[in-house]
Amino acid sequence: MSAPPSERARVKRYNQIADYDPQTIHAILDAMPLCHVGYVFNGSPFVTPTLQWRDGDMIFWHGSAASRMLESAECQEVCVTVSLYDGLVMARSAYNYNINHRSVMIFGKPAKLSDEEKLVQLRNMVNKTIPGQWERLRPVKPQELKATTVLGMKITEASAKVRFGQPDDDDDADFPVWAGIIPVRYEIGRPEANPKNPLGVELPADTALFKIG
Amino acid sequence: MSAPPSERARVKRYNQIADYDPQTIHAILDAMPLCHVGYVFNGSPFVTPTLQWRDGDMIFWHGSAASRMLESAECQEVCVTVSLYDGLVMARSAYNYNINHRSVMIFGKPAKLSDEEKLVQLRNMVNKTIPGQWERLRPVKPQELKATTVLGMKITEASAKVRFGQPDDDDDADFPVWAGIIPVRYEIGRPEANPKNPLGVELPADTALFKIG
Repeated sequence: MSAPPSERARVKRYNQIADYDPQTIHAILDAMPLCHVGYVFNGSPFVTPTLQWRDGDMIFWHGSAASRMLESAECQEVCVTVSLYDGLVMARSAYNYNINHRSVMIFGKPAKLSDEEKLVQLRNMVNKTIPGQWERLRPVKPQELKATTVLGMKITEASAKVRFGQPDDDDDADFPVWAGIIPVRYEIGRPEANPKNPLGVELPADTALFKIG
Repeated sequence: MSAPPSERARVKRYNQIADYDPQTIHAILDAMPLCHVGYVFNGSPFVTPTLQWRDGDMIFWHGSAASRMLESAECQEVCVTVSLYDGLVMARSAYNYNINHRSVMIFGKPAKLSDEEKLVQLRNMVNKTIPGQWERLRPVKPQELKATTVLGMKITEASAKVRFGQPDDDDDADFPVWAGIIPVRYEIGRPEANPKNPLGVELPADTALFKIG
C-alpha cells in the first residue's frame, strides 16, 4: 500500500480526489460489510453484492461453493467496491447536487482459502460484527466448511473517495434557495429474538457493539 | 419486464431465490439512489458507485462528460447493482450467519441522452429526492448541461433478491445461543443549513419527504 497507485487504480479516479491512504481505505471497509464484487463472465460484466470483511491488509468475501460468482472470480481480475451513503448535498443548482459518501475500489485477483484458512477467516467474519460471537455459536461442521468458499485478496491496488460537508457552490450563494446537507446515518434497531430461542438464553452484551457506518 | 428472465439475468441468481417482479425491482431502485455500475474497460472489470434514478421502466445515472466510466459504458454491456443493508441475521451457526438485504441487478447497454432528454431526467433526479426542488433551484446553464453526461437504459433484464426476517436454522434451535435479527435502518438527520444562505431563505417543507431505505 506504500507503493504509488497503479495505473488501474488511477484510471478509476480520473478527475476526482482520490485517497490511497490505507487507514482511510480500511476504515471504509470496516464501516460497511456489504460489498459489490465486479467480475467478467463470458465477456460480460457482473456485479454481485456479498459480505466482505478485512484482516490486516487482506479483504475476504464468501459464498456457496456452488456459486458461479466465486468460481468465476477465483484467480481472475475483480473489482470490489464498498460504498456508504452519508447524506444529500442540497446545492443551489442541479449541477452541484451531490451526495455525501465514502467509497473504496479494490482491484486484484483473489485466491480461494484452504479449509484451515477458512476457519480462521469465518471466525473473523463473525467476530468483527460482534466480538466473541464465534465462540458462542454452534461449531462448524466439516460438510459446512466444504460447502463454503472464501476468497481472499491483498489490498494493494485500491483507492478511496470521500465526499463530506456542504455544497461547493459559493458562486451561487446569493441565489434565494435553501442550501445545505441532510445527513443520513445507519441506525441500529432493537434486537428481535427468535421465537424458538431456548428459555434462559440471553442476548450477549457484546451485541451492543454492533455498528454500521 | 413481462418476458421470461434472460439467460444472463438468470445466471446471476443461480441458487438463490430471485424475483423478477417489476414492482419489487422498482421499489428497491427507488429506496436507494446509490448504485454500482459494472463495466469492462480494457478487459478488466470496474465497479463505479454513482447516483441512479428511475423513470417508469428506465434507469438513469449520470456523471461528468469527462468520465471514462460513462464513456466506457455507453453502448457497452453493463451490470447496474443497487443494494441495501437491512440488518444482521444472528443464526446459531456461522454457516447460517447472514444479512437481511434487498438488491437488484440490471443488465443492458445504456445510451447517452440528448440535451433535451437530459433536462427532463435531471429534473427527475432532483425531484425524486425532494418534490418540487428542481423548480426552486438556480436554472441549469447550457455549459453545465454540456458538461453532464446522463446514461439511460430500459429495465428489461433484471432480477431482485430480498432476504428478510429470522435465521433459517430451526434444526439448531435447541443450541443454547441467542438467535435473532438486529435491524438496520437509514435514519435521516436534521438538515444542516449552509452558513452562506441569504437571510430569510427557508428550508422547503417538502424536504421532510426525503427518505432512504
